[in-house]
Amino acid sequence: MTTYKLALIPGDGIGGDVTDAAMAVVQAAARRHDFTVQATTFDWSCAHYLRTGAMMPEDGIETLRGFDAIYLGAVGWPHTVPDSVSLHGLLLPIRKAFNQYANIRPHRLLPGVESPLRSDGFDILCIRENTEGEYSGAGGRVHQGMVNEVAVETAIFTRAGVERILRFAFEQAQARRGHLTSVTKSNAQKYSMVFWDEVTREVAADYPDVTVSHMHIDAMAARMVMAPESLDVVVASNLFGDILTDLGAAIQGGLGFAASANICPDGTGPSMFEPVHGSAPDIAGQNIANPIAAIWSAAMMLQHLGEDRAADTIIAAIEAATAQGIGTVPGSHSTDAITAAILSALEADA
Amino acid sequence: MTTYKLALIPGDGIGGDVTDAAMAVVQAAARRHDFTVQATTFDWSCAHYLRTGAMMPEDGIETLRGFDAIYLGAVGWPHTVPDSVSLHGLLLPIRKAFNQYANIRPHRLLPGVESPLRSDGFDILCIRENTEGEYSGAGGRVHQGMVNEVAVETAIFTRAGVERILRFAFEQAQARRGHLTSVTKSNAQKYSMVFWDEVTREVAADYPDVTVSHMHIDAMAARMVMAPESLDVVVASNLFGDILTDLGAAIQGGLGFAASANICPDGTGPSMFEPVHGSAPDIAGQNIANPIAAIWSAAMMLQHLGEDRAADTIIAAIEAATAQGIGTVPGSHSTDAITAAILSALEADA
Ligand SMILES: CC(C)[C@H](C(=O)O)[C@@H](O)C(=O)O
Ligand SMILES: CC(C)[C@H](C(=O)O)[C@@H](O)C(=O)O
Repeated sequence: MTTYKLALIPGDGIGGDVTDAAMAVVQAAARRHDFTVQATTFDWSCAHYLRTGAMMPEDGIETLRGFDAIYLGAVGWPHTVPDSVSLHGLLLPIRKAFNQYANIRPHRLLPGVESPLRSDGFDILCIRENTEGEYSGAGGRVHQGMVNEVAVETAIFTRAGVERILRFAFEQAQARRGHLTSVTKSNAQKYSMVFWDEVTREVAADYPDVTVSHMHIDAMAARMVMAPESLDVVVASNLFGDILTDLGAAIQGGLGFAASANICPDGTGPSMFEPVHGSAPDIAGQNIANPIAAIWSAAMMLQHLGEDRAADTIIAAIEAATAQGIGTVPGSHSTDAITAAILSALEADA
Repeated sequence: MTTYKLALIPGDGIGGDVTDAAMAVVQAAARRHDFTVQATTFDWSCAHYLRTGAMMPEDGIETLRGFDAIYLGAVGWPHTVPDSVSLHGLLLPIRKAFNQYANIRPHRLLPGVESPLRSDGFDILCIRENTEGEYSGAGGRVHQGMVNEVAVETAIFTRAGVERILRFAFEQAQARRGHLTSVTKSNAQKYSMVFWDEVTREVAADYPDVTVSHMHIDAMAARMVMAPESLDVVVASNLFGDILTDLGAAIQGGLGFAASANICPDGTGPSMFEPVHGSAPDIAGQNIANPIAAIWSAAMMLQHLGEDRAADTIIAAIEAATAQGIGTVPGSHSTDAITAAILSALEADA
């Protein structure tokens, strides 16, 4: 029986609540589909920071390297630790250290969930570059606190970095409806974004079966709202992908439904799976967080590990639950009740 | 009788169509409210570039300096001149040269216009920083065309630049419902955006009557879709404001309704008024572009010039037309028909 070694980082706030839910579903799926998931939990978080001065131990990255996958609940507790510290001390370094350059986020409506849009017939896969670009962490401030202070933040794009995410996105488009939209802002950012557009045109030559559209981020944000059904696979830089996927979450009914995978496609390190939502400390531990995004992310993890049947069973169980109105409206069901409904749909689906 | 000297730059594509419409309405309002608008037209555009090698003459900025206001239709004709050339040769330098640091864009539904959202009770004023930040134009590329190519684009924020746009936004919030949302991404961009947040907290101390919220751009994009009625005045950097205002345009029914003012608040140069939409060369000259955004922008111009009554009359005339279903649905009315309906509402409103 295959055993997968999983590093579990519940993190902060509702991270713990939704991780518990996701793991209950993963273990049930493992039992049904004859594999074992051996989870090791790490308490790396803002609480860890307050205790030790670091979000994770110095050898944190090396520790994670030995696992088949990483599952993360949520990071951040801004009232105690600034996000700029907590995220740069845990989430962002993991993405970068393991070359998890492809952040994948599916946006479609689950049955029974109402979109804030009148339109509901969309099925978008966003591919976000996850290791460089606008979140490179390069920059500085001079004359700090003075009237003449200047702050700079430098977006850094490498050809290798841009090319690999584009190839990944083209492959996703080939496996779906054959359409890729590349999102830049080359009319105002004439170095980075013009470069991205050029690389896109070069790479496109290798994928003649994929139709490519180029859109600016502003027009694309409008498109997500006005005509989401016109989109198939969307590829964008770190920042633009970040924005578009929260927008994707919104049109699919909210962050409670937005799943995400940080993939290391070349397999040189573990990939990481996490819901798009944050830690929402104000509702932590109250059994009211929606665990669907977290459970869906866990399904993406099993698919990545090669357990496609288990992944499909979980997605089907989520859909069976939401089709009955469970977890579709904020506040109507507890975290436990939603998890129980998904677990029982999983058992029922023989 | 007061005379305003107006520099008119129809620009490219539908820029000409909508400028004609806007000017017809401005002149009618001027006659009714006893002032004169003396317009001088400049053919600066991509066609000008193809003829002369420059989007505007070398002394273009100096020429514009003598005017009371600038009205611009739209710039760009990407099939002939790359946007990165045309916009950096006309629109962006004007915004910067005249310190038009406040880009103001109102987002609300006109009567009779359907939003792609189920929600329709929103009234948002976006204030976008317009002269620095992510569109500073600083950056470069090394090893161009090589496998090891690197492109960088540097966002530059100055204290003076951030402080002045924040003060402007706080004042707008005071004049409206007293709520300001400042949009950054300080959890991932720890130099520029942490700086913006700090300046916001400092400036806020001078406006105790304004309630301030801080939001990240990703969460804010979702908020515009999930709960736009919770927003009053929104202030953001050049890029973030650019994205949010296209999103604002989308929720208000489309770019055909999105007006904009590039204001130089200290009066050291003329301000510029333009619809948010682009030049849409494919439909240029066909009498089908929606002129409402352009006419609304012209009303913002008259308000800026101190002709509040004329501005109000134009807005009321636009609302009278859309309330009758004129111009509310793409393709149902020609540019001329919409303009005529607005002109006749203007005449009727005695
Ligand atoms: C928490 C934050 C740094 C993170 C990001 O921007 O990458 C989050 O918004 C996300 O989308 O995963
Ligand atoms: C055309 C482009 C450079 C411009 C901008 O991004 O500023 C436009 O999108 C706008 O919003 O006015």
